[in-house]
Amino acid sequence: MAERHPLVIVNTGDGKGKSTAAFGLVLRAWGRGWKIAVLQYLKSSTNNYGERRAAKKLGIDWFPMGDGWTWTSKDLDKTAEMARVCWDRSKSLLASGDYDLVVLDELTYVLKYDWIPLDSILEGLRGRHERTFVIITGRGAPEALVEFADLVTEMREIKHPYKQGIKAQPGIEF
Amino acid sequence: MAERHPLVIVNTGDGKGKSTAAFGLVLRAWGRGWKIAVLQYLKSSTNNYGERRAAKKLGIDWFPMGDGWTWTSKDLDKTAEMARVCWDRSKSLLASGDYDLVVLDELTYVLKYDWIPLDSILEGLRGRHERTFVIITGRGAPEALVEFADLVTEMREIKHPYKQGIKAQPGIEF
Repeated sequence: MAERHPLVIVNTGDGKGKSTAAFGLVLRAWGRGWKIAVLQYLKSSTNNYGERRAAKKLGIDWFPMGDGWTWTSKDLDKTAEMARVCWDRSKSLLASGDYDLVVLDELTYVLKYDWIPLDSILEGLRGRHERTFVIITGRGAPEALVEFADLVTEMREIKHPYKQGIKAQPGIEF
Repeated sequence: MAERHPLVIVNTGDGKGKSTAAFGLVLRAWGRGWKIAVLQYLKSSTNNYGERRAAKKLGIDWFPMGDGWTWTSKDLDKTAEMARVCWDRSKSLLASGDYDLVVLDELTYVLKYDWIPLDSILEGLRGRHERTFVIITGRGAPEALVEFADLVTEMREIKHPYKQGIKAQPGIEF
């Protein structure tokens, strides 16, 4: 068997495809029989988006931990607290050795709003089990996280249908 | 039901995540019960990568049409001919109305090597069924294709593990 190097992967930038590329890796990894957990920071626990429906059918552990995006949240303190709860669970899943791949979707928002110190995040990533790959998504990944990661891609928006007045569509955007 | 605008989506650039984001949309769309076809230009028909294994289990139609990447091909004429066969099939699937989503993975290489004229590609895209979304991936999408598309993202490499000497790993890269 080839040597295994569990990577920390970061998908950042203002364009589309950060979470979607993470879900593509989920599909690929699932095809190889990997055990996968997805933790969604700031996505509502009541969402029933296409990716979550798929995950249920595929036996992927999926944890939408937030109470919706911050700009729809009526109580920022509660959002921050839920993000911290989500991070505690993330740390424990990362360290458990139960997963080949853990996706921390939109984790960068937690850093942007200073809800969890970057040092704690890096400590949690360093403390992951030796078998566990990690994917982190979200805009504005801080330089120290880029430095720490093995594989970093920036998704840049070249053209977006919103600008033609076309709204987000199920199946494509969620 | 919300109005449906079947988009042409292009994922281009030199970074990771172009095909992977397309596979993420496949997962999301599959979660919503969409009918999906994936045509892979230049991927070997004998490959058994994670994404293809997953597609088989999920009932996604998957057509790896090439005979491997051009730089491993011993017979470029044969590669070009297979790409043309793949494009003929793509056109017919696009027009059929059988699919909600058709992925044309690595199609830009066909344009790069001038195996199929851009005008034919645009004609085939225009001739797609009104229900059918399209995702095109690959480096160096030509300007006219970007102009034609509704949603275009550039994946930029910020950091790559190859540079640390870590090789491509199953589950992550293929």
